[in-house]
Amino acid sequence: MTVFQKSFQIRTKPYCDVIDITSQVQEIIRESNFKNGIVNVHVAGSTGAISTTEYEPGLVKSDIEEFLESIIPYDKNYRHHNTWGDHNGAGHLRSFLIKTSQSFPFQAGRLQLGTWEQIIFCECDEKARTRSIFCTVIGE
Amino acid sequence: MTVFQKSFQIRTKPYCDVIDITSQVQEIIRESNFKNGIVNVHVAGSTGAISTTEYEPGLVKSDIEEFLESIIPYDKNYRHHNTWGDHNGAGHLRSFLIKTSQSFPFQAGRLQLGTWEQIIFCECDEKARTRSIFCTVIGE
Amino acid sequence: MTVFQKSFQIRTKPYCDVIDITSQVQEIIRESNFKNGIVNVHVAGSTGAISTTEYEPGLVKSDIEEFLESIIPYDKNYRHHNTWGDHNGAGHLRSFLIKTSQSFPFQAGRLQLGTWEQIIFCECDEKARTRSIFCTVIGE
Repeated sequence: MTVFQKSFQIRTKPYCDVIDITSQVQEIIRESNFKNGIVNVHVAGSTGAISTTEYEPGLVKSDIEEFLESIIPYDKNYRHHNTWGDHNGAGHLRSFLIKTSQSFPFQAGRLQLGTWEQIIFCECDEKARTRSIFCTVIGE
Repeated sequence: MTVFQKSFQIRTKPYCDVIDITSQVQEIIRESNFKNGIVNVHVAGSTGAISTTEYEPGLVKSDIEEFLESIIPYDKNYRHHNTWGDHNGAGHLRSFLIKTSQSFPFQAGRLQLGTWEQIIFCECDEKARTRSIFCTVIGE
Repeated sequence: MTVFQKSFQIRTKPYCDVIDITSQVQEIIRESNFKNGIVNVHVAGSTGAISTTEYEPGLVKSDIEEFLESIIPYDKNYRHHNTWGDHNGAGHLRSFLIKTSQSFPFQAGRLQLGTWEQIIFCECDEKARTRSIFCTVIGE
């Protein structure tokens, strides 16, 4: 077998909730029994994003939020709001920018991340959501 | 066989033309006959980009364009213009930022995207182009 | 064999040092002996990034640096600085934004990049670093 796929769910808070999902991704690699390869981490949707950061409160609770707010503010009259009457244009733009997936290497069954590099899901929507994170492990 | 590669072409308009390429990518997955895996979608070049968005006119025709223009305006004297005498510095920076590739999962032969998540090519150059989108399907 | 993994090291300068790593990645594909597939290029850490650009001095020495400085300036009092007493909050945000990995296709043993598209490592930290770039080749 060369492909193993599994998803897990997380519960998010609205507005730039940054959640460490490293351990869940690592566990799915373990379940695959693959030793070496890559894992593609994807969130189905258009108002969430996958990236990495050092998971400490300064970055996670303040700096990332302030940075994204400085270039894509929530309180703005996006054209998207006129299409459906909703109010999550900023969430869509943040997801477009940071992207809904990223792939990571693993070797000897372990994610090859830096000591201060955690895989994160970034909620960009303006309401709490239950998110399904879909992992595809490709390896041997 | 575990790798299937095929490209398709699209014709773009200049300046932030956002094109839905989901159906072409899905068709290449179908041709691969793989059931489960990932597809890497890549544009060869340095003034185009691949990402996802909800493909509705507010986002596609206005919000994405206004956002990118707010942080990387076309009408600016980039140093790149002095190197070759051309004028697409903004296009290069947008491609650097959004990136030329992204990988997506599929299962049972279907892309695992959200209902409102479409795969898009984003033209960043200042002239109309014919773009070749190169897809690599890896799976089983 | 369907997975081949190898890393190489580069020495960087502080503050937005952009280094062309295309030839090293191409050499690892050659060593893998795979003809067709993808290569995942990853830097372990949270203050570096992988992307592509046309590798010419205007973009590499000026435009990319000025763009990133315009949205994520180094000289700012990020909350991250209070957590550890260090001063690389901007580097973390740039790495979060541009991301620590990207995957690229190859065919007949050759990276399928555009003529003006080079793979780059972007140093975002405020000190010189020795960086290990980890490549995972998946193919056949």
